Amino acid sequence: MIGNNIQLDKNGNLKHFLTTEGLSLSLLQSILDHAESFSSVGERAVKKVPLLRGKTIANLFFEPSTRTRTTFELAAKRLSADILNLNISTSATHKGETLSDTLHTLEAMHCDMFVVRHANSGAAHYIATQVAPHISVINAGDGCHAHPTQAMLDMFTIRKHKQSLRNLRVAIVGDILHSRVARSEIHALGILGVLETRVVGPHTLIPKDVENLGVQVFHDMDEGLHGVDVVIMLRLQTERMSGALLPSAYEYFQRYGLTRKRLAQAKPDVIVMHPGPINRGVEIASDVADGEHSVILQQVSHGIAIRMAIMAMTMGRSPEDSEDSR
Amino acid sequence: MIGNNIQLDKNGNLKHFLTTEGLSLSLLQSILDHAESFSSVGERAVKKVPLLRGKTIANLFFEPSTRTRTTFELAAKRLSADILNLNISTSATHKGETLSDTLHTLEAMHCDMFVVRHANSGAAHYIATQVAPHISVINAGDGCHAHPTQAMLDMFTIRKHKQSLRNLRVAIVGDILHSRVARSEIHALGILGVLETRVVGPHTLIPKDVENLGVQVFHDMDEGLHGVDVVIMLRLQTERMSGALLPSAYEYFQRYGLTRKRLAQAKPDVIVMHPGPINRGVEIASDVADGEHSVILQQVSHGIAIRMAIMAMTMGRSPEDSEDSR
Amino acid sequence: MIGNNIQLDKNGNLKHFLTTEGLSLSLLQSILDHAESFSSVGERAVKKVPLLRGKTIANLFFEPSTRTRTTFELAAKRLSADILNLNISTSATHKGETLSDTLHTLEAMHCDMFVVRHANSGAAHYIATQVAPHISVINAGDGCHAHPTQAMLDMFTIRKHKQSLRNLRVAIVGDILHSRVARSEIHALGILGVLETRVVGPHTLIPKDVENLGVQVFHDMDEGLHGVDVVIMLRLQTERMSGALLPSAYEYFQRYGLTRKRLAQAKPDVIVMHPGPINRGVEIASDVADGEHSVILQQVSHGIAIRMAIMAMTMGRSPEDSEDSR
Repeated sequence: MIGNNIQLDKNGNLKHFLTTEGLSLSLLQSILDHAESFSSVGERAVKKVPLLRGKTIANLFFEPSTRTRTTFELAAKRLSADILNLNISTSATHKGETLSDTLHTLEAMHCDMFVVRHANSGAAHYIATQVAPHISVINAGDGCHAHPTQAMLDMFTIRKHKQSLRNLRVAIVGDILHSRVARSEIHALGILGVLETRVVGPHTLIPKDVENLGVQVFHDMDEGLHGVDVVIMLRLQTERMSGALLPSAYEYFQRYGLTRKRLAQAKPDVIVMHPGPINRGVEIASDVADGEHSVILQQVSHGIAIRMAIMAMTMGRSPEDSEDSR
Repeated sequence: MIGNNIQLDKNGNLKHFLTTEGLSLSLLQSILDHAESFSSVGERAVKKVPLLRGKTIANLFFEPSTRTRTTFELAAKRLSADILNLNISTSATHKGETLSDTLHTLEAMHCDMFVVRHANSGAAHYIATQVAPHISVINAGDGCHAHPTQAMLDMFTIRKHKQSLRNLRVAIVGDILHSRVARSEIHALGILGVLETRVVGPHTLIPKDVENLGVQVFHDMDEGLHGVDVVIMLRLQTERMSGALLPSAYEYFQRYGLTRKRLAQAKPDVIVMHPGPINRGVEIASDVADGEHSVILQQVSHGIAIRMAIMAMTMGRSPEDSEDSR
Repeated sequence: MIGNNIQLDKNGNLKHFLTTEGLSLSLLQSILDHAESFSSVGERAVKKVPLLRGKTIANLFFEPSTRTRTTFELAAKRLSADILNLNISTSATHKGETLSDTLHTLEAMHCDMFVVRHANSGAAHYIATQVAPHISVINAGDGCHAHPTQAMLDMFTIRKHKQSLRNLRVAIVGDILHSRVARSEIHALGILGVLETRVVGPHTLIPKDVENLGVQVFHDMDEGLHGVDVVIMLRLQTERMSGALLPSAYEYFQRYGLTRKRLAQAKPDVIVMHPGPINRGVEIASDVADGEHSVILQQVSHGIAIRMAIMAMTMGRSPEDSEDSR
């Protein structure tokens, strides 16, 4: 398995980070452990380690995302890397240049890492197959396929609150069908050995055969939340509302919105997560988003630490190196 | 007064910088003194002090402004801070996220300071009431309300030329009604104890009851300039020309444009200021803008020093600290 | 000649870099030598030298260009300078501010260098005549006039492969008429003393009297390539296709596209260059762009080194200084 995983180098170390699928338990744990070391950096007076000083990281955003781009930009800056923000949709490709030529041009500028956001599933993987050996590629979201850094920051957040992920019941609620976050989480939760992963949502938004990924399917929200330790709410793409897939926002909230009443079905120490940005009153009630079970803002903080960890690891550096090089 | 001033922490130190209104004389003088120390940084071969190294400053521009954003960006970089430029009008809020959620998300990323430009009066003040205790908010212009860093760089410029502000007569000329700069200056000039602040402009552009702020109103330009030490010209928003408030640009210049002839009414050593960008031939004649009384470009230089001073002070650092930490 | 060259200071050192025209052989060689020293920086683990630490460089792009802007941004960052990216077309000038006022404002912010891209020929030169003595101006492309950093990176690439430029035959192929790259290259090749510079293209795309620049004109591609050491392909502006100047892309490729077959007319060790972005199948066949004679990606790498060299030289610094100041 490791041998043909494009994400690993020949020594089994992380080279690219494209998907949580097919990674080993020990590697995921190693990412979480590295992030633990980096999470203190955000608390320091000087929020900076010199680990990637003199490295050049390019944010290649083929689809715009201020929030995700910002977290990668901050992670890079706190690692002391130089970062280029390239909004590719508005640049060279419109001049008729091929994607491959754009990539090779950035390589020739001695970039060390591409952080890729793309509307097409598989884009980051494809780019990883095209780049020179010294380049690492990090998937910042590709179509409906994967958003592995989001999944890992969620795993980090769960571990912070529940110590081990074993023996946990986790419910992922909402538009599973279109969610790259859900897909990456289902794989990560499986590898980390949770007791049960549930997906909860209307028939139209649950992929067929999703049980093959080892999850339990629930269409009733109360049943789906019954006895769970963790609820992961997905963002509802309101642009999908207009189609046949979804009833109105009001109806959706009636059936799948997370309210205090519904949350009472879960364990008393349940944590509530959401990748943001939140649609208050659509997928989650305001008092739940702001309530005592919510760890939504912690997820954001952990997102910086996880991205620092993954950026450092794919560059072959670990947090301990930063103490030496200071 | 200090007790209920949201801008100060419990020890009376500057925490946010939202308005010049209600600040003490000693605090304004302290800002000017700090800026004096920083003004030499721009002259050095290495224009950088490590005072805010490892701090993260977010430029939150809800209304675009290349010039003001650039001065804050430069000030931050010369203090060695990391800066994020967020054009909020084109990002998360368009996805239905509330302002409050956007702010808390940036907080969770361990930002230390928000520099806020917003079309609504009171926006920066509101944001300051919403953020976590460790965050400082600097108002980079809110609606028609305040633009306090512009006012302070103008005070700095006046002090440079006139030593003390006491015994000065200062005329502010133009669209007082819509000018956040004018409002912040009137307060600052009052606190710094000038002999007389005058506002000069057509009836339609002078707010009613402006005398309550302690200013003298003039509708005749020659009278308004008579014997003054300082003339502050305001930028005319030419988009207001089309409405009923203003005659044509030509007529406006005839009545309120600053010409050499008119300037002869002022004291021989008068200085002429303008916040920029200038509309030559609308509010000011080119030969005055470029003439020996003009200190317009000095204002720009001082703007960097003032913003460095305010950024450092709200973060609890003073210029002397930078010598230690180098 | 040196005396009235605005690009040189009174000691004959490079102050601005606006055009290759009229520069001395020794100065061009000095630029190439400096770039040689900098080219190793891109290969290092820490791709950074502290040569321009604390300097402020403004990218003034009046016409958008992600690729060129990125190379200057990277060069600046690798020299440790602070860089401001100003897209002027969308900023202050639309508020009615004159170009001159925009420039003086940036000067007053203590910028040290302006990198200028402008649609009008002569813009960078004009700006160099307007700025304060401490500011250096680098031309990043002005209209159809000059693109001297592109020309110098091409000279650097040729020298890398052919050691000396003397005794070389160089063909520049394509739309010579509209190409600022071609113009800057013709001057540079002349100064560096090549045996022969040829321009190859249809009658409509070759300027009249171009022979006065000391070049040989060819309208037949095979003849033009016969026996050359270097082929420089120009990018075809496909927006010109629609006019009367050009036949269809298909016809153009038939007559002037660089194919393997045509390239066989050149010397066996010919190198093929292109400033990018490439239109595959329009001006160059894919197998040639990717083939063993192509040095197109090396040009990109060399572009960073050349720009570092020119930035450092106009600031009066040389690569050796960086060893001292580390």
